[in-house]
This record gives sequence, C-alpha cells and structure tokens, in this order.
Amino acid sequence: MDPIVIVGGDAAGMSAASKFKREAPDRDVVVFERGEWVSYGACGLPYYVKGDVEELDDLVSLSAAEFEERGIDLRTGHEVVAIDTDERTVRVVGPDGEFTQSYEDLLVATGARALEPPVAGTDLDGVFTLHDMDAAARIRAYLGLDAPPVDDGAGESAGFDDVSEVDAVAVVGGGYVGVEMAEAFAEHGITVHLFEMLPHTLRPFGAEAAAVVEEHLEDEGVRLHLNTAVEELAGTESVTAVVTEDGEVPVDAALLGAGVAPNAELAERAGIELGPTGAVATDEFGRTSADHVYAAGDVAEARNVVTDEPDYVPLALTANRAGRAIGATLAGEPTRTGGIAGTAALKAFDLEVARTGLVDEDAAREAGFDPVSVTVTTGSRAHYYPGSREIQITAVGDAESGRLLGASMVGREGVAKRIDTVATALHAGFTAEDVSMLDLSYAPPFSPVWDPVLTAAKVLDGKLAD
Amino acid sequence: MDPIVIVGGDAAGMSAASKFKREAPDRDVVVFERGEWVSYGACGLPYYVKGDVEELDDLVSLSAAEFEERGIDLRTGHEVVAIDTDERTVRVVGPDGEFTQSYEDLLVATGARALEPPVAGTDLDGVFTLHDMDAAARIRAYLGLDAPPVDDGAGESAGFDDVSEVDAVAVVGGGYVGVEMAEAFAEHGITVHLFEMLPHTLRPFGAEAAAVVEEHLEDEGVRLHLNTAVEELAGTESVTAVVTEDGEVPVDAALLGAGVAPNAELAERAGIELGPTGAVATDEFGRTSADHVYAAGDVAEARNVVTDEPDYVPLALTANRAGRAIGATLAGEPTRTGGIAGTAALKAFDLEVARTGLVDEDAAREAGFDPVSVTVTTGSRAHYYPGSREIQITAVGDAESGRLLGASMVGREGVAKRIDTVATALHAGFTAEDVSMLDLSYAPPFSPVWDPVLTAAKVLDGKLAD
Repeated sequence: MDPIVIVGGDAAGMSAASKFKREAPDRDVVVFERGEWVSYGACGLPYYVKGDVEELDDLVSLSAAEFEERGIDLRTGHEVVAIDTDERTVRVVGPDGEFTQSYEDLLVATGARALEPPVAGTDLDGVFTLHDMDAAARIRAYLGLDAPPVDDGAGESAGFDDVSEVDAVAVVGGGYVGVEMAEAFAEHGITVHLFEMLPHTLRPFGAEAAAVVEEHLEDEGVRLHLNTAVEELAGTESVTAVVTEDGEVPVDAALLGAGVAPNAELAERAGIELGPTGAVATDEFGRTSADHVYAAGDVAEARNVVTDEPDYVPLALTANRAGRAIGATLAGEPTRTGGIAGTAALKAFDLEVARTGLVDEDAAREAGFDPVSVTVTTGSRAHYYPGSREIQITAVGDAESGRLLGASMVGREGVAKRIDTVATALHAGFTAEDVSMLDLSYAPPFSPVWDPVLTAAKVLDGKLAD
Repeated sequence: MDPIVIVGGDAAGMSAASKFKREAPDRDVVVFERGEWVSYGACGLPYYVKGDVEELDDLVSLSAAEFEERGIDLRTGHEVVAIDTDERTVRVVGPDGEFTQSYEDLLVATGARALEPPVAGTDLDGVFTLHDMDAAARIRAYLGLDAPPVDDGAGESAGFDDVSEVDAVAVVGGGYVGVEMAEAFAEHGITVHLFEMLPHTLRPFGAEAAAVVEEHLEDEGVRLHLNTAVEELAGTESVTAVVTEDGEVPVDAALLGAGVAPNAELAERAGIELGPTGAVATDEFGRTSADHVYAAGDVAEARNVVTDEPDYVPLALTANRAGRAIGATLAGEPTRTGGIAGTAALKAFDLEVARTGLVDEDAAREAGFDPVSVTVTTGSRAHYYPGSREIQITAVGDAESGRLLGASMVGREGVAKRIDTVATALHAGFTAEDVSMLDLSYAPPFSPVWDPVLTAAKVLDGKLAD
C-alpha cells in the first residue's frame, strides 16, 4: 500500500503524522516540509522577540529527529509543487531534484502566510512580517539584540540591559500579532507606532474590548494611529518612515501584521474545491472535494458551531485537533475534526483579552441572527477581597431564539480562560438564560458570587426579553 | 393582599426580597432575621480573620438601611418560631414580644449552622466555629489581634506586625473552612494543627487533589494529623490541648470545621417535607410540599444536573440564584431556581483547588453510573512560556454513556475558574469526547495549545473507550 503523504510539517501535519503512526505503526507516512522547521509554536514568536523565550528551539514541540524516531519519514527542504488527484501522486522538489510520490491518502496542511499590505516599500530592509521562525530571528538581529537572557524562573522576563539599536518601530496592523509585537518591541525600550486603518484595533474582539486595550496601550507608551491607512513605507535601502495621509512618522523598522491568507493555491491548482472563505473546503472528517485528499490547519475551513457554516479562523488548537483527528481517521478510526467557535485569547501588556463566537453584530446579522448585545463591567474577585480588578464583558445574543452567540472580555486577570465557559456554552447551543443559570465556581479570591459570565448572561437575557 | 414573608436575611432571603420588590414595587415584603447582620459574605470570614479584609462591614453587600431604602420591611432581631401553613401565618419573637404575621407567600431561608463534632470540651473558651460574623470577630479578639491593617492596594495582605497572643491552634476538620482557616491562622505566625479523621482533607475534591493540597499545607508549616479522630478538647476554662488516640497536642485555641447542617427544624415542625439529604425538599421553582411556601439557600435541596436527583450543597451562588428566582416567581414571572453541579473553588495558601460534579467514584456508582477516572498533570502555560505551573486534573466519566461526570483540579494558577468549563459541560450533558473537542482559548501566557481540560477529557475518553 502506498504511504500516507502529508504536505506541511507544522501543527496539523505533524499531529496527523504522529497520531497516524501511533495507531497504525506498520503503515508508512511521509511528510514533506518545504522549510527546515517543523512543529513549532508560531504563537510564541512574539515572546521570543520580546525575550521571554530564550531560544527559537524552545518553541519546537518535537524535533525532526524525534519525529524520525517515531517512524515518520520527515523530509524537510522538500516542496510539493503539484497534486494529481487522479493518479494519487504529488510532485516534489527537493534538494536532490524533482520526483513523484504516490499516496494512499493525502493531507494538505500547507498552512497560511502573512499578508503584506498593498503599499510601496515593503521590500525595504528593516520591514518584517512574523510568520515563521526565521523571521523572528531576523527581527532580533535587526534590532541588534543578543539572544534573550535566561529566564529568572520567577515567571517574569528578566529584563534587558542591551537596549535595541532601533529607536522607533512601526507596527502596521492592529491585530493579534500587531498588539503582541507592540509589547515585544516596547520591552526593549523601542518607541512603537501602531497603525490601524480601522477605527479600532483587534477587530475580532469587538470595539468595546478594543477600546479598553487601546487605552492601556497608550498608557504603556504605544503611539496609536487609528483610522490611519499607511500609504507607503519610505526609505532608500532601509525603512526610515511611514507615510500616511497625516504625514510622515520616522521609524527604523516596521512590522507588518496585516493578517494571514491560506496557502490554498496548491490544492486549488489540483482542482480541489475552496470554500466561501477562500480556504480549502472540508467536511466533518476533514475530507476535501477530491477522493483520498484531506486538508487541515491554517489552509482549511472548519465548521463554526454558532453559524453551522464553514468558517476560516486559523488558530493553533484547530490545526492540532484536526490533524490528530485525520491521523486517527486515516488509521482506520473515523474521527470528526470538530467545530470551532473562534475562541481566542491574547495578552496585551498587562491586559488579558479574549473572544468567542459572534462578537460583531453585523457578522451576526449576516449569519441570519437578530443580534442584541450588552456590555457589563464587574469585578474579578469578591468586592471585599483585595486586588479585585475590572472585567468588562460584551455578550451578544439572538433576540429570536434567546441563544447566546458570542462574547468578548478584557481585564487584568481571570479573562483568558474565563472565555472558555462561554465557548463551552456556545458548543452546547445554550441560551443567555441557560448561561445565567450555570453553577460556576465561587471563592472570594477568584470571583464574585455571580461570576462575570453569569452577570453578563443575566443582563443579556433581560435585554433579549425586552 | 398579605405581604410576602421571608424567614432569614442572608443571601437567599435578601436576594428574593430585592428581586421581588424590584419587580413588584407595590407589594409588601417583610424579612425576619433573628440576628443583626444581613446579606453578608460568609465566604469572606476567613479573610477577615487572616487580615485581608479590614472590617466585618466590608463583607456586607447591602446594609439593613439600604434594604429599607429599597422598600423592604427588614426586621433584624426577629426570630420566626413557628409556621402555620393552613392559616398562612408565622409566629415571630421580636424585641418587643411575640406576634403573628400573615403571609401571602412564605420563603424559608433559614440557612445552615456549623456542626460541632460530638466530643467533650467544645464549650471551653477558645473553641470556635466560623459560621457567622460575630464568630469571626470573637476569633480575632481571642487571638489578640487588632483590626486588620489597611490593604496596601497591591492585592496582597499587608502583613502583620502584631503577632497573635496564641501560639498554637487546632483546626478540627479538613474541609473548606478548615483549610482556609489554617491559612488565616498561619498568617499570624500561629502554629496550626489540622485534624482530619479521614485519610484525606477536602473530601468533596477527591483524594488526588487533596494529596497535592496536603503536601503544600505541610510545606507551609501546617502540622497535618490525618486519619486522626479528635477524642476530646481538654482544658479547665479554656482549651489547652487536643486529645487523640495518638496522645495530646497542646493548643491555645481550636476552630471546629465539622461541616454544616440545614436549619430545617422550623420547616419540619410545620409539616413541610424534608428531602433525602435532610434539607427542605423543593421543586424546580423552589416550592416546598406546603402551598405558598418556598425554600432556598443553605436550608434547601437543589437538583443535581449530573444525577438529576435532589442534592444538598450549601454554597453562596445557589442561595443567591434560588432567592432571586423565587423573588421573580412571587412577583409573577415564574422562574426556575436552576440545577447545581456542586461547583466549588478554594484557595489553600498558594494553591487553587476546584471541583464540580461527581468526583468520587463511589458516589458515582451510587448514582447509577459506571465510573472511570483519570488523573493527568499538564502545564498552565505553553511549555516554553516562563512561569508555567503544573495543573493536576482528575476527571470522572461514565463507561456506559461516555458522559463526563465531574472533575477536580489543583495548581498554582488557572484552576479556580478553569473548573467552570467542566461545570458548563456538565450542564450540557457532554461526553468526555464532546469536551475533548471544545474550542477553548489558547495563548502562550495562559494555556498550552491543548488546554488541560481538553487533555484530561481526551485521556478520559481514551480510557472510557477501552
């Protein structure tokens, strides 16, 4: 029997390979990865630049050697350039030339790439995206930073004596990566200019949460340029300024965080259907439109549990989970890849920000709901317990069904994982009233008697009933 | 129309009164409270003794005066001594004598009381329970402590210069209160001897979590006496020693934490049915067996969402929620009091401990399940992110249905509210597999890619499938 072939050696691909080999140790699995790094935590890259993570290698879950020990035929530096779904072969370009590989089943796990905004100057020196390990290393080198210091074990960055050679950096795009990188740059004493063409940063988290983050970013010294489209990155060899309609802002470096796009071209060229989002369409088992071809991770769509429609939210857990499920399916145990709620969390300096489901009313309307939203602010602890901080929750519900559709939260503590309560409720299809009746934990150091989620659900339920 | 009458002015009673008056401002509501304090956070008492909370008044949510401003006829110092469910009257003993009060509807919210273990010497000076505000004040006075210092605002106890006049204290009973009070006493430099007749403390949390807590208690200097029944509290006027079969342990004070019992006698004498747990039986709206009589809070049963049977778990949220629901029902909007999962969290020095549902396999078997449990230890953050701490989760599932039945957790961070994900899943009736497929949040500072809950569910699902 031909081997299982996997295109892409990151979260989805390596999860599938590992699960498959564990369940079907006598079968062969070949992974082609065009780069050199495999199975690394891209979400940790900002913390490598910041200095909280000492070595790029620390971000690697398992090394290439460890995967080989598991019996996985892992070929780094090998790019799959074509798929023939009739012949069930892939065409591969490797260091020793081009060759054809047959497959029994194929998994397309080609991931996503950082988008570059359509402005001049993105090819100047000192202009970066942050979508792979090498990019992070190049950024640190450009900043003139040594390897990060050894962590002091206290859970805090040990701080830097070596201040960056760069005085000011532009972060273009106020998404996750932009906000995380603003924190990373600021750690080195660099003045950060954050440019966002929309009225708010962190679009998936909604305006209410974003407004709190923005105030905090400014408190931390980040210069915010909202409603500001970058027209050009100026410079001769290296970037020296960001040009907007408001004028020029001098900078020594720029980080482009304009979002990501699925690397779906390989699949598309092979006649595999893409979905409405532009990512590869998959069914509940991760199967594509082509027989014996699966897709998972940042290249693929997944089913949104709120809308029950295909969605594209390229995040690490989705990739790992879908990869693992497909590995099990290919080994003979059909396993669903699972739905997504678009749950995400983010650290923004001292704030935690989180979201799940449908947060934006317009998006909810497009999905056929009649959205109502409330924003409430409560404490993170009992009112009398020292150190309580505000937690702001925006909750969105459907006036017709009473269903909870989504929520965002922001605060200094107790936010990032509290969103999971809401995410679980979304998976369950709970109404706002159902959520308001959940038996959640209470102890004075950790929550008010009515957890903020309960309070938000209660207020939302009241408004939905109006 | 006769007024709504409420017996008991704490969480359940005052929540009901407030909600009722808000929804039916033209109706009368009378609350009889035999003590002087109303609507206070009993869960904060250990932190008052510890010194984290400055004044007893800080524990009060709303003062008697504030309730009166809301139009609630609140009579402190008034004890209801009899209910006549035929005549729809209560007999009340107040400071000005005894009288009869008619009711349209009655809410019994008489709470619970601290149990005293059946040993000699519990009436000695220096022997305390911690079930109300005055008890907490008496403990601080006996310890010779001034009022707690003003919090320094940094979320930490400011520490005490005034060391207790008491050198050693016995905590009899290793439940919530016992463990929280051990921390409170230790804060003042008092040697704490914790006596537990069972092999482990914190029975509702299960042996696996308790073992971790016990190791931590010992690290913090608490002397643990497990498997040790206290036979007598010795002393002439005041307590001077705890007598066990292993001999005498000299102490200067003792705190009895032997659990609580519902104050159900008033209802029972009126012919109102008690349930299998000994608390007042209620239906889904909080109605008792007597027409026009409701019960809520620590005196009443609630429906367990896992077993679908009556259960008695006297906790603050349940009381608040049921009170509020009954207030709405009495005002004309029938509202269910909601089920409980027995969700609870606890701070034990530097540890967070939490539980929900059925954690004990024996209890699960009694409820008709075929329990299987797993214990897994994972990290609280991404493996490469500084400061990650271990989180240990024990998850219990039903081999027949695959359902998740409950879980306990313990760790230094991210535990107390992470249990809410499991609690929500229990409300939804999810299987272990369902839980393993939840889209939970991930960001390196807050979680591994696979949240500990997902990992535990995945391992449990694997074992259930065996």
